[in-house]
Amino acid sequence: MKTPRPIAPHGLWLDDIAEGATFVTDTHTVETAEILEFARRYDPQIFHTDPDSASGTFFDGLAASGWHVAAITMSLVVTTGLPVATGIVGGGAELTWPSATRPGDVLRVTATIDSIKRSTSQPSRAWVNLTQHTVNQHDEVRQITRPRILMWDRPIG
Amino acid sequence: MKTPRPIAPHGLWLDDIAEGATFVTDTHTVETAEILEFARRYDPQIFHTDPDSASGTFFDGLAASGWHVAAITMSLVVTTGLPVATGIVGGGAELTWPSATRPGDVLRVTATIDSIKRSTSQPSRAWVNLTQHTVNQHDEVRQITRPRILMWDRPIG
Repeated sequence: MKTPRPIAPHGLWLDDIAEGATFVTDTHTVETAEILEFARRYDPQIFHTDPDSASGTFFDGLAASGWHVAAITMSLVVTTGLPVATGIVGGGAELTWPSATRPGDVLRVTATIDSIKRSTSQPSRAWVNLTQHTVNQHDEVRQITRPRILMWDRPIG
Repeated sequence: MKTPRPIAPHGLWLDDIAEGATFVTDTHTVETAEILEFARRYDPQIFHTDPDSASGTFFDGLAASGWHVAAITMSLVVTTGLPVATGIVGGGAELTWPSATRPGDVLRVTATIDSIKRSTSQPSRAWVNLTQHTVNQHDEVRQITRPRILMWDRPIG
C-alpha cells in the first residue's frame, strides 16, 4: 500500500528512529473507580469488580484487569511515548503480566526499539518491534508488551 | 500457592476440561459510539476517534482500537465462553489483528484448548493454552488471541 496520510503533523517517520532508541512516557495513576468501571464492562470477575469480595481469590484483593493495564499502556504510549506520523498501527503484540496492578499504582511505560524490519516488497515500510515495560512507582513490572507496529519512510517532496 | 477461592459456584476445574475442547461465545455488536468512547480514553488517534477525519489514514475510515477488540474478546469469553471456577487468570497472551474491526461488526469468539501443562512443583495447577478467533458476522478474523491461563484441580472434599 502507499504511505498513509499522516495524522501527527510533527510525528516520526522511519528515518527518525533507530534500533536501540528508548523512550519513557508520563504516568497514569490507577484509581479504584477506573478499575471497577473497566472491569464491569470488559472483565466482570469479582477480583476486578468487587473490593469487598476479592479476598481469598487468586488476586486476594482488588486488581486491575490485565486488559485494562494493556489499554492504559497504549494510552501512555500514544499520548506521551512514540508520536508516529502515520499513527501507531499495531499488527500484534505479546503480553505478559508478571504481577497484578493495584489501586494507587502510578504506571509509566519505558520502551526500547528492538528491531526495524524493512518489507522486501515495499522497502519504504517496516515492522518496528518494541519492548515496553509498564512499571509502577516502585519499579514493579506490571506488564511487558512486545508490539510490532508499521512505520513508513518520510514521503519525498 | 494453594488453590484460590472459587468465584464461580458451578465453574470449571482442570478435571472438567481436555485438550482439543472448543467453545463459542455469544456475540457483541460493535457500535460507533463505543469505538469512540474507548479510543478517546485509551487510544486517541483520529482513525479511532473521528469518523470524519479517518479517510486516507492507514485504516481509511473509522476502526476500533485493537485494544478495544481485545477487551471485547475478554468480555465475551468471561461472560459466555469459559466459566473457570477460580476465574480467568491470564499470565499473558499473544495477539494479532489480521483485519480492522469496523462499526457494525458483530463479534463472537471461537476457541480451542490447545494444551494443558501441569506444573511440576504444584501438580494440582496447570497452564491452559488456548487459541481464540474473534470473528465478525462474515467470519472475517479480527483478532487471534493465544492466552495462557491458570487453572486448578477441583479441591477434594
